[in-house]
Amino acid sequence: MINGNRKGDYTMIKVVAKQVIKADKIEEFLQAAKQLVQDTNQKDAGCISYDLYQDVSNSQVLTIIEEWENKESLDQHMKAEHFQKAMVVFKDFTEGEGEINLYQKLS
Amino acid sequence: MINGNRKGDYTMIKVVAKQVIKADKIEEFLQAAKQLVQDTNQKDAGCISYDLYQDVSNSQVLTIIEEWENKESLDQHMKAEHFQKAMVVFKDFTEGEGEINLYQKLS
Repeated sequence: MINGNRKGDYTMIKVVAKQVIKADKIEEFLQAAKQLVQDTNQKDAGCISYDLYQDVSNSQVLTIIEEWENKESLDQHMKAEHFQKAMVVFKDFTEGEGEINLYQKLS
Repeated sequence: MINGNRKGDYTMIKVVAKQVIKADKIEEFLQAAKQLVQDTNQKDAGCISYDLYQDVSNSQVLTIIEEWENKESLDQHMKAEHFQKAMVVFKDFTEGEGEINLYQKLS
C-alpha cells in the first residue's frame, strides 16, 4: 500500500498517535511526552513536525501528531533510543492499546 | 474545558475527523470530501489548514485534519452551507459513527 518508500523519496507521512492516559498519570505522561517531542524535533532527520495535543473535552486523550518527509525517516525515528525509552515509560500511563494511523495526504 | 473562545482570541484548535468509509463508496466519498476541502479553504475565515488523508494500510480510513485560529471560526465553519451539505452526503458513505477529536496544542 505504501508506495515511494525508497530512500529520499518525498512521500510525506502523517501520523496520528492517540492515547487514553490514566487520570492519575496525566502529569507524568506529559513530562515524558514533552521530552520525546523535544528529542525528536532536535535529533530526528526528516521530521517535519512532531507535536503533542490534548483533547479539549477529555484531558485523558493525549495525541501526538507527526509529519515525516518519508516512511524511512519515520522508521529511523521508531528505532531511536529516545523513542524506544519513551514507549517503555508510556506503557505504565496508558489505558488500553492506543490508536495509531499512518496517513498520506490526498488533498 | 475550552478557554479563550472569545472572538478573535487566538487559541488554535486542531481537529482530527476520522471516518471509516464503505469499501464500495470510497470514490464517491473522495469526490465529496475534496469539494468540501476546496470550499472550506476558499470560504471559511480562520481556517489555517484543512486537508484530507487516507490511511496507508487501510484505504477505507479517511480522515480530515484541520487547524482553526479559534473555536469560533470552527463553529462558523460547521454552520456553513458547504459543510452542512457535505455531512448529509457523507452519511451514505460511512460505516459507523466516525471519531472526531478537538485538540489544543501542548508542545
